[in-house]
Order: sequence, then structure tokens, then C-alpha cells
Amino acid sequence: MSEPTGTSTRSRLLASGATLFGEKGYDGASIREICKHASTSMNMIHHYFGSKEGLLNAIVEQFGSDIFVVPMRLLDKVPRSKEDFLSRMEMLLESTLEAYIEQRAVLLVVVREQADPSALREYMERFVEFLEQSKKKGFVRKEVDSEMITGAMHDRVLNQVLFAPWIKRSFGIDVLADATYKRRWCNANLDLLMHGFVP
Amino acid sequence: MSEPTGTSTRSRLLASGATLFGEKGYDGASIREICKHASTSMNMIHHYFGSKEGLLNAIVEQFGSDIFVVPMRLLDKVPRSKEDFLSRMEMLLESTLEAYIEQRAVLLVVVREQADPSALREYMERFVEFLEQSKKKGFVRKEVDSEMITGAMHDRVLNQVLFAPWIKRSFGIDVLADATYKRRWCNANLDLLMHGFVP
Repeated sequence: MSEPTGTSTRSRLLASGATLFGEKGYDGASIREICKHASTSMNMIHHYFGSKEGLLNAIVEQFGSDIFVVPMRLLDKVPRSKEDFLSRMEMLLESTLEAYIEQRAVLLVVVREQADPSALREYMERFVEFLEQSKKKGFVRKEVDSEMITGAMHDRVLNQVLFAPWIKRSFGIDVLADATYKRRWCNANLDLLMHGFVP
Repeated sequence: MSEPTGTSTRSRLLASGATLFGEKGYDGASIREICKHASTSMNMIHHYFGSKEGLLNAIVEQFGSDIFVVPMRLLDKVPRSKEDFLSRMEMLLESTLEAYIEQRAVLLVVVREQADPSALREYMERFVEFLEQSKKKGFVRKEVDSEMITGAMHDRVLNQVLFAPWIKRSFGIDVLADATYKRRWCNANLDLLMHGFVP
């Protein structure tokens, strides 16, 4: 069975909105352009989202719920062992990097508009809880502020994806597509965060 | 002696451009608005900067040269001892945080336009060199990738200042003005980066 036309128009509007808001900012992209890009008529935004702002909110919420599915699953259980804990931390870094790369257009919108996807806050809170549980089991150093770990991991991933064009221009590295570089980058970040820079 | 009018008009245009580009983006702010904000006539942008793009470039370059004066001085010499090295790292984190807070308007422009202030790149390169020198003296763990340290420190500071309104909305903390919080935040970040989260 094929997808009903309604659903598909709605998805196209979400995708086109994300692309154009990402490129031109919320104020810079017009309803007219978005509808043209989505090959649909002007009144469809009003039909599905009420307004341009409604479209933005729907994009931000969809971003949040799509992007944190895998990371949230990794935080689901208290780790059984130190090895289990460390391998989850590794997968968290890699999976958020990949998710942000995949949804880069929406990420640009979220950052530009300083939007507040509820799923991002839930993820950060859950991550802190996971670290506190791991601390109780002796897998995390007691003196460390868990929010610094979640913050540092998130900042690294976010900026790597956000500033990819700048990194490419400055250093010639395609951080979004170069799989070898991505793996090396994840490992080097984990090494620093796990063991610190002091010998 | 009072400042010559020419200099002061130029400075006002730089400040107004930074404010309005920061608020509305490069495309969103018009030459007309910037000149009105700077209490000067339209042709002054052309007189001093050639064009709107010329004004943006001047803002970005000024930002870079102003902001990294103190940090660059801290990287000036090879550290004499481990204590000297660690106290410089601490001052680097604090001084870049303060400089970014002070120049937040321009920072927003730089990030939004993905501009490339040459002083930022010079700072990052000098910082890597400083860490490599410190590594040779045994103050930095050999296995750490120096670029991860500079990247992590810069990402933390940048995002703290950039997302200050979001942090205030979400957690009620004024990260730009609360001196006690800022000190605690710097210390907690340094603790994580120096010693890692693995016990």
C-alpha cells in the first residue's frame, strides 16, 4: 500500500522547511519558498502546521525524537561492568555523531533559533543519571561533575558537525564523510575524557 | 585631546554592525539600520569599509585581534614546571571564557556566518604547539592528541557563551554573569580534562 498523499506532503514540508531554515535562517526563508521546494501549494503549511512558527516547532520536535532513539537506548540500563560502561560511552559518542551528521540541516535550525527540543533535555538528564549510577558502581571517578562529561561530549559532537565547512576550509578534512577520520576522532576524544591530559 | 570624529564613526559602525549582525544575521541586518544605530549617514559604510561585506570582515578581524591578546600571552613561553603549565591552562580557560563573554555580540556573527578570523586559527595552532612543548617536558600525557585538548577547551567555552540564553531558560543559571558559577564551571572542566572520568 502506498503512503497516503497527506502524510507525504507533511513530510516533504518538514524536510523542505529544515533545509531552507538551515540555509537561510527562520526569518530568511519564506513560506512561499518552502512550499515551492516541497512541490505543494501555499495553504498546506497552514493546513498541517497552522503557521510558519508551527512548522518550525514541528521540525524541532521531530529532530529531537528521531535523533536520540539510539543514544537513549544505550542509556537504558545501569552498566553491568566497567567494560560494559566504557563500551556504552564509546557507542554514545559514535551514535550521537552519526545522528547529528544525518540530521545536520535540522541541527542548524535548532542552533540558529536557539530552539529547545524537549528530547535533547531529556537525553542530557538521562545521561547524567546514567553517569551517577555508574559512579555508584565505581566506574566513574567520584570527584568528576557528571554534567561536565555530558556537556563536553555533546559540545564536541555538536561543534564537529556544525563547523564541518569551516574545518574543511581550514584543514582540508571532511569530518562528515571521512570514516577513518571519524573513528580516529572518536577514539582520541574518548582517550582524553577517560584518562585526562595529566600524566 | 578628543578622538577625531572619523575614528569614532568607524568604531561606532563596527559596534553597531556587530550588534545588529549578531541579532539578525548578516542578511537580516540592512546597511540603513546599521547606520541609523550608529547615528551616522548611509555613505559612511562605503567610506570606511567599501561595502557591507567589508564591514563584516573588519568586525571579524577586529574580534580576533582583540580577543586573543591575553590567551596568546599565556602561550608565549614554554612552561618552566608542571605547576606553571597547569596554572597557565587554568588561566587560558578563564581568560578565553571572559573574552568571549565580553565580545559575545561579535562571536554570534562569527559563528552564524562561519567566518574565519585568522587570529582564531593562529591561537589554536599556537596552543597545539604549546601542548607539544609541554608534552616533551613530561607535563602532558604522551598518548593524548593535543588537538583534542585545544578543541575540547574551545568547544566548552564557545558553547557556554553561545548557548547562555538556552542554559538560562532551561536551568535558570546566568552563565555570563554569575561569578561563583563561572569559577566552579572552569574548575570542574579542568578537573575532567586533567584527570579524566575513569577512576
